[in-house]
Amino acid sequence: MPGEYIILSGGVGGAKLVAGMQQVLAADAFSVVANTGDDFNHLGLPISPDIDTLMYTLAGIANTTTGWGQENESWNFMAALEKLDGDTWFRLGDKDLATHIKRRELLAAGLTLTAATQCLCEQLGVDIRILPMSDDPVRTKLETSAGTLSFQDYFVRRKAEPLTQAIHYSGNTAAQPSAEIAAALSAPTLRGIIIGPSNPWLSIDPILSINALKPMISARNIPVVAISPIVGGAAIKGPAAKIMSELGIEVSAQGIASHYSEIIDGLIIDNCDTELQAAIAANGIEVGVTQTVMRDTADKAALARYTIEFLDTLSD
Amino acid sequence: MPGEYIILSGGVGGAKLVAGMQQVLAADAFSVVANTGDDFNHLGLPISPDIDTLMYTLAGIANTTTGWGQENESWNFMAALEKLDGDTWFRLGDKDLATHIKRRELLAAGLTLTAATQCLCEQLGVDIRILPMSDDPVRTKLETSAGTLSFQDYFVRRKAEPLTQAIHYSGNTAAQPSAEIAAALSAPTLRGIIIGPSNPWLSIDPILSINALKPMISARNIPVVAISPIVGGAAIKGPAAKIMSELGIEVSAQGIASHYSEIIDGLIIDNCDTELQAAIAANGIEVGVTQTVMRDTADKAALARYTIEFLDTLSD
Repeated sequence: MPGEYIILSGGVGGAKLVAGMQQVLAADAFSVVANTGDDFNHLGLPISPDIDTLMYTLAGIANTTTGWGQENESWNFMAALEKLDGDTWFRLGDKDLATHIKRRELLAAGLTLTAATQCLCEQLGVDIRILPMSDDPVRTKLETSAGTLSFQDYFVRRKAEPLTQAIHYSGNTAAQPSAEIAAALSAPTLRGIIIGPSNPWLSIDPILSINALKPMISARNIPVVAISPIVGGAAIKGPAAKIMSELGIEVSAQGIASHYSEIIDGLIIDNCDTELQAAIAANGIEVGVTQTVMRDTADKAALARYTIEFLDTLSD
Repeated sequence: MPGEYIILSGGVGGAKLVAGMQQVLAADAFSVVANTGDDFNHLGLPISPDIDTLMYTLAGIANTTTGWGQENESWNFMAALEKLDGDTWFRLGDKDLATHIKRRELLAAGLTLTAATQCLCEQLGVDIRILPMSDDPVRTKLETSAGTLSFQDYFVRRKAEPLTQAIHYSGNTAAQPSAEIAAALSAPTLRGIIIGPSNPWLSIDPILSINALKPMISARNIPVVAISPIVGGAAIKGPAAKIMSELGIEVSAQGIASHYSEIIDGLIIDNCDTELQAAIAANGIEVGVTQTVMRDTADKAALARYTIEFLDTLSD
């Protein structure tokens, strides 16, 4: 049964959920739509951080300490570049660099980002279908106390320190979902869409911002389920809580529910947020409650299994 | 006294002589014109092997065992690229890669190859003036038993194994010497031009092939001196002897003298080739005899000093 589920994924949280899905579903039972709003061109190379986090995680070579890059990485290129007064604010490990060089080559040869990603996945032994949200560029831009910033400038160079006033997704009007995403979304076997526990503003909204995509999702009469990245009023990782606060949104699973209210049928919240269940449900959103914090391999599989079961109850 | 000498240099032999000149002359007393006929674009990066050999040699970071790349190099990028089924026939070390990435950035910012080289030299602490033979592309092409080959295809990928029938330098008609080379060649202080012990066909002829360059050299009434790369009927390094033989040229310092007869006033040959002195001199070429094989730092300085003294005798 190919293509039963589509998972929208951003950074580490999404990749962990997908690693759980990898344990509980057949590789052809789901597709992952990866955020490319963080993508940028750096040192002449096309960098796709969220695609790489997914690929490296699923290949078992991700650096789980940093949350980006590869494990057992070396930094001799970076040290030599520093001596040449090169840009070193975005850290590129020697092994990681090969991914970007290869991606550049594939794109230069005329492959779409989707095809290039498939090619890289094959070489890394990843059989999960990772689909960039678009082959067209959509770029996350933040209006901040330090001016309009591109994502990497905000997130890496400025360590997410500027205050966020608004976020937009440049290119979202013109960008089209890829043929592969359109096919996955129209598959008769599709049972539901899962929004991973990623940052809604920086990881998921870029995907949903693509004008042509939302109607394709709405057109399917299938459940959409999100997993709250906010647990106990804090983000597991990254600047989600900080951004919510700066945007004047309640930093809670309920804030996440409100944000996603137009698109989701169900929200999975953490055991520690049980007291929010009734309030969220009062807004017509089904609520699942489980352990959403993924500390190890078993946690990932458990959350993936729970998510599938929860979603399937909504299909009935 | 700026710009007393111009040295034409190709690979390792030329770089060694220049390292000798670095010991015996002030940095502003000479310029080095570097062959760029070997340059190529690889993995999206502009590679300038002979410029790099010069820079790394003068910075004291050259790998003297391989004759290319940096010492204490690591290969983690290359290993990762191999796993991604990338092109690995041209070896790029992790540290070396920084040079190419930085050069690409400088060129993309609109710098000429000359300015980019100057910038890289400054960062590497090299104060010798290295001037690419042109900012325009001139590319060495070999007609061989395996068809028409670009230089790196012939030299690196095919290990110089195909039989050479002819060599030409694509772009040599349109290419202009850089403003910096034109200035060095017209400097009133210029006392002579030295052709390093590099491969005449693969390292020096690409420079001399630039249509606009030869008249600029001839116009100056100053000595041109070459150092024979053929010693005792063999090349110190590389495929010079093999190519001479395939082109039907006598593999000797005399064969070198004949090849350069139109441009040189003097030729320096090795002590072991003393018996050729009379025959070369009979063709109107002054002959210097010394130890031309450079085994260590002292040898390089000695050859550089001898070359300057020999050239100065021809100025009188």
